[in-house]
Amino acid sequence: MIMNKQILLKSRPDGMVGREHFETVETSLPVSLNEGELLVKALFVSVDPYMRGRMSASKSYVQPYELGKPISGGIVAEVMGSKHSDFRSGDVVLGNLTWTEQQVVNGSVVTKLQQGLAPLSYYLGILGMPGLTAYFGLLHIGEPKPGETVVVSGAAGAVGVVVGQIAKIKGCRVVGIAGSDSKVAYLKNELHFDEVINYHTTTDMPAAIAKACPDGVDVYYDNVGGEISDAVLQYINKFARIIVCGQISMYNSTEIPMGPRPQVALVKNSAFMKGFIVSDFSEHFPEGVKQLATWIGEGKLEYQETIMKGFDALPDAFIGLFRGENTGKLLVEI
Amino acid sequence: MIMNKQILLKSRPDGMVGREHFETVETSLPVSLNEGELLVKALFVSVDPYMRGRMSASKSYVQPYELGKPISGGIVAEVMGSKHSDFRSGDVVLGNLTWTEQQVVNGSVVTKLQQGLAPLSYYLGILGMPGLTAYFGLLHIGEPKPGETVVVSGAAGAVGVVVGQIAKIKGCRVVGIAGSDSKVAYLKNELHFDEVINYHTTTDMPAAIAKACPDGVDVYYDNVGGEISDAVLQYINKFARIIVCGQISMYNSTEIPMGPRPQVALVKNSAFMKGFIVSDFSEHFPEGVKQLATWIGEGKLEYQETIMKGFDALPDAFIGLFRGENTGKLLVEI
Repeated sequence: MIMNKQILLKSRPDGMVGREHFETVETSLPVSLNEGELLVKALFVSVDPYMRGRMSASKSYVQPYELGKPISGGIVAEVMGSKHSDFRSGDVVLGNLTWTEQQVVNGSVVTKLQQGLAPLSYYLGILGMPGLTAYFGLLHIGEPKPGETVVVSGAAGAVGVVVGQIAKIKGCRVVGIAGSDSKVAYLKNELHFDEVINYHTTTDMPAAIAKACPDGVDVYYDNVGGEISDAVLQYINKFARIIVCGQISMYNSTEIPMGPRPQVALVKNSAFMKGFIVSDFSEHFPEGVKQLATWIGEGKLEYQETIMKGFDALPDAFIGLFRGENTGKLLVEI
Repeated sequence: MIMNKQILLKSRPDGMVGREHFETVETSLPVSLNEGELLVKALFVSVDPYMRGRMSASKSYVQPYELGKPISGGIVAEVMGSKHSDFRSGDVVLGNLTWTEQQVVNGSVVTKLQQGLAPLSYYLGILGMPGLTAYFGLLHIGEPKPGETVVVSGAAGAVGVVVGQIAKIKGCRVVGIAGSDSKVAYLKNELHFDEVINYHTTTDMPAAIAKACPDGVDVYYDNVGGEISDAVLQYINKFARIIVCGQISMYNSTEIPMGPRPQVALVKNSAFMKGFIVSDFSEHFPEGVKQLATWIGEGKLEYQETIMKGFDALPDAFIGLFRGENTGKLLVEI
């Protein structure tokens, strides 16, 4: 038996998530593999806002984590041993795995990655769940047309940076909403957003939206919800499309959040608001990965990662998501 | 010059609309017609909830009524004189006309109705705006499938009764929400809704929805908004479609109404909420009228009208809309 670290859900957060909700333990590995199994070693571990929902007891679009059981999420891992005919040692795989340094998994639950096309960590970001979330939400739900105004909240996050850049590729006026001056500078100077609003320093969000969107809002890609979205909704155009991707401002709420009802604005403008999860589009994933990789190769898509180091950094990395600290995709290199 | 009655917007309601907001005046008619003009006499005048929005100063999807100017809306009228080659005396036309007993209009703003197919008043209801609103909202936005559960609020209203019956034609389980026991009885016994909830006597709406929709809600046709919709939203299924047609509970509000934010439910269920106005589908109107008339002819669509009598009844008829007094389409025969 070899020993290795694993991180469990110790207790369910009631409000803001903290280090006290995680517990690191030593766990053992079986010394031999059964037919079809792999021993894999985590290389890159993703932390994502949706995981906060799984820490609560109530059912969301994914099952809650179990108390006393390991956290799980997107992980890129190296195959250390294989009893599965499709895999050999040295292969790199992507899967929804547990927060464990080394683990045994069935080969059927992971996908082998083609090495050399892009950095392996990209498969947790721009070529993985966040990138595909941006791609399908914006293009398949929002259907932006050249010249339209696209607003994206959480603009500097893993999804937001991809949404804004794809909208630029499609010929739209892109307005981002982000939470620090450094993020604003990055989005304007590096990613060429047309306007970016710092919601922390703006005292009048509706006025800021009105100024940044003189022709109104045709597509709103909503990663955050709450008062930022209330302000955007005041300026939507006829036939506007609101893509409700995440509601990060709500995930640590302990009660159903209240706000101005959006229905009247939807009726007045023949607009729609649609929620989704990236797996709704799973049959189109190959198309999305191919297009995103092509744009990266052509230099049309910039991509930035914040990589924290070491297995022990995982809880802090996750908590940091809700403090608005990361620019681009946040992940942990083991 | 001949004299005839006309009803003006006297003042803008701030809250509930009342008789004090209307003024009846005598107005004159020119004795001769210019080329292209018709003299028409109102036969049936429609009162509809959306008109409340036009009484306020703020722009909605239609322009506000002007103070001191006549109210306008859907009217079926008889041609009394014509200087337009497409019309002759005795023709019956449909148009958006002013609340005036007799008026001169350009022939280009009215549509000649085929007499004898259906009662003329039907063109203000099931074959007119409310019927087409039900038809396109339910079928083109909601896209109900056989076996799905369709919930409709304002179920006994002009739109609601058509929504529920089309959903039954499409093989759905239909649950109505209405405001009196007589409406409940009518919807269950005459229109064969599967379940109908009386929101006035139900003390726990969420529980009532849960009981009436054991398989959850796939399509919600929302005519009313507010707490009724909040309750329905708790039970939507994956990929649910919410058609936001009217928000009658909101029209007399003086401030932006607050409520639980629907976005989290939309994300959890990959659901959408879409507002619309019937004119969004104007290019498909002939298809809608033909299908509705066919269903009426086949006895598949029941239709009920509440007809008040006399030009002077117009303000009371309109105010009655917001008291939940009418079953089926409310209109005034002049």
